[in-house]
Amino acid sequence: MLKSYKELSHEELISLHDDLSNQYQQMKDLKLSLNMARGKPDYKQVGLSFGVFDTVNSQYDFGDKIEYCNYGILDGIPEAKAFFADMLGVKDENIIVFGNASLTIMFDQVSRGYTHGYLGNTPWCKLDKVKFLCPVPGYDRHFAITEHFGIEMINIPLNEDGPDMDLVEEYVNNDESVKGIWCVPQYANPSGVTYSDEVVDRFAHLKPAAKDFRLFWDNAYIVHHLYADKQDHVKDIISACKEAGNENMVFEFCSTSKVTLPGAGVAAMATSPENKKDVLKHMAIQAIGHDKINQLRHVEYFKQHDLNEHMMKQADMLRPKFEAVLKVLDEELGGLDIATWTHPLGGYFISLDAMNGTAKEIVGKCKEAGMVLTGAGATYPYGKDPNDSNIRIAPSFPTPEEIVPAAKLLALCVKLVSVEKLLA
Amino acid sequence: MLKSYKELSHEELISLHDDLSNQYQQMKDLKLSLNMARGKPDYKQVGLSFGVFDTVNSQYDFGDKIEYCNYGILDGIPEAKAFFADMLGVKDENIIVFGNASLTIMFDQVSRGYTHGYLGNTPWCKLDKVKFLCPVPGYDRHFAITEHFGIEMINIPLNEDGPDMDLVEEYVNNDESVKGIWCVPQYANPSGVTYSDEVVDRFAHLKPAAKDFRLFWDNAYIVHHLYADKQDHVKDIISACKEAGNENMVFEFCSTSKVTLPGAGVAAMATSPENKKDVLKHMAIQAIGHDKINQLRHVEYFKQHDLNEHMMKQADMLRPKFEAVLKVLDEELGGLDIATWTHPLGGYFISLDAMNGTAKEIVGKCKEAGMVLTGAGATYPYGKDPNDSNIRIAPSFPTPEEIVPAAKLLALCVKLVSVEKLLA
Repeated sequence: MLKSYKELSHEELISLHDDLSNQYQQMKDLKLSLNMARGKPDYKQVGLSFGVFDTVNSQYDFGDKIEYCNYGILDGIPEAKAFFADMLGVKDENIIVFGNASLTIMFDQVSRGYTHGYLGNTPWCKLDKVKFLCPVPGYDRHFAITEHFGIEMINIPLNEDGPDMDLVEEYVNNDESVKGIWCVPQYANPSGVTYSDEVVDRFAHLKPAAKDFRLFWDNAYIVHHLYADKQDHVKDIISACKEAGNENMVFEFCSTSKVTLPGAGVAAMATSPENKKDVLKHMAIQAIGHDKINQLRHVEYFKQHDLNEHMMKQADMLRPKFEAVLKVLDEELGGLDIATWTHPLGGYFISLDAMNGTAKEIVGKCKEAGMVLTGAGATYPYGKDPNDSNIRIAPSFPTPEEIVPAAKLLALCVKLVSVEKLLA
Repeated sequence: MLKSYKELSHEELISLHDDLSNQYQQMKDLKLSLNMARGKPDYKQVGLSFGVFDTVNSQYDFGDKIEYCNYGILDGIPEAKAFFADMLGVKDENIIVFGNASLTIMFDQVSRGYTHGYLGNTPWCKLDKVKFLCPVPGYDRHFAITEHFGIEMINIPLNEDGPDMDLVEEYVNNDESVKGIWCVPQYANPSGVTYSDEVVDRFAHLKPAAKDFRLFWDNAYIVHHLYADKQDHVKDIISACKEAGNENMVFEFCSTSKVTLPGAGVAAMATSPENKKDVLKHMAIQAIGHDKINQLRHVEYFKQHDLNEHMMKQADMLRPKFEAVLKVLDEELGGLDIATWTHPLGGYFISLDAMNGTAKEIVGKCKEAGMVLTGAGATYPYGKDPNDSNIRIAPSFPTPEEIVPAAKLLALCVKLVSVEKLLA
């Protein structure tokens, strides 16, 4: 354990600053080119799924599936619905299979609320004010969607067991203009938190003031465990809502983007049969059916490969990167009292909280020395972290060789900027 | 040449009606199950393109294209942009490559106009009135999109050389609420008409009252010729608009849905660089990049197979069906003075105009005898054909064995209903 920076004298801090500045200059001289900005797999990991390309080839015997080669089948091929129902622990009747990205499903779902409204409710574009709750820190692309539609976003603290439910209940149950909440219930982006059963149940039992309030339940990391023996499993929200008499309150999203290939995977939504019918009514105007051959490719691949074993192969590549970053952070920052960070069991991120008012500067210093991080503030609505303290670390994309220098550079910049802050 | 029904005496009509009714009863007794409703290929035709599945397999050497396996590249892989630019006769810089359906691009483009507006113009959802011009007969799914967004649709007669441009100019140049027009400029759905150069030039030289007026130029059948030696080629609208100083006035759409596989193909839009930038700004919120592996599959396939030769193989399957239908119509209806029909050089439809007030009844009679046709009226906005005369025939899906009975049933129903009309 190192000595807390906060116990250092002014002179010690000055001397430390000189030392760290020298180290930083040496790092800069290495002309590094590193990227820990986005949660995307590296190319070795992607290569694990290239077998997907082979499952449907020109010799494939379509038999009675030949209609998959034509227009139609708007809600997805039955085998793909079964695949996602199984993944999410819901029924086939809850599933619509879409194209290559759950982000696009979410965007379109918000857009449908905006232009047409859900189940006959007033379209949001006709209302003076529409609000979404945003557990923070959260996923920048969620916030970008609601900002795009002019929806006011309200920060909700995300605790160890999920969002602050007292606050969620207060808003949702009393304010009719609150129409949705963005949730990543398992291995949350970026904090790695998984919602407890109690939190899920409190969500299911909300009594929304707005009839068209919806949980935007982005189960992006549902099978994305880092360990075989230590895993979180969030409770199924679809059945919880149904049991609580709130069957229509949730849209759940997932995809194979980080199961097979980002960009060439398959995405799905789970929701109540009534919502599903409503969505399909819109989709009948917007779509001719999604890519059913790609759905079939995936289904055939996972007939041949156990999904959990497949994910464990990916975990075997990801886990060392996470552990390498955590080891550096522990060694370099442990006990210094200038930062805290998460130790996630799954997902794609480590979330680091530095001293208030230092995150932007740290990210800037990293960039100056050749490493791109997610922009500071990106994990908050409007890109505004009120404490300027949260930094999202994405260890997945750098190669195993790059990951230690990357983590060291980050730790160095945290130290340097913290000392400057303490000296200021 | 048969004798015109209009010259027949009442007695002759009565006797003819008895005869036709008997024939119709015999047809019904055959318990046919035929479908000429939608312009979709049959499965033999679809099978021509199964080679697409093989071009990117697990042994594919991605080399410096490995990033196609990850997130990103929002406007499509460069090779796919080049492919579509070549197909449309435009520049790569004009192209955005999307997912599996041009219909979805069109829907999303209208949706963007509705929610955000083009290039800083007022979103249509904030306006009291938005109108689209609809050349008729036209494509039902176009009209469904504008109806979905509450946009008022105005019928524009479609002549042999394109829409009635006097009327188009009068509306577009004077009415600020006219924001768009739906065009299928080559082998129009359903009439098969190709716009003349003069019509294209008059489009390009419009002086729209609305700054955000756009041509929705659905070049769905640009390489879909039925003959090698008799082909229409519509003039390029992108360069025509640019030369006329209206560079931002057009969104052009196309896809490989009827080049390779419906549902598993690739779609694209061509537009000005300024529009493209505007669209990409929205797409950055909505998408993580479309399926680049499927884009690559297609590009690789058409490196190995000449596009025009590929389309001629399809034409060799489609042409006999068109000719069989036309032969039956000529033999059965020629000279009867009760219907006219088109002789298209490409596309997917034959358009038949029966006597006013008979189309619904004819389609109903066909259905009763086991053949589904596109609903009468579907080729007009709101499903309302003011003359109740237009019937869209899609010869592509029935097998070669089914096509003659299908055409004969249609001809019989046209005759029967016409006689009933003349007797009424």
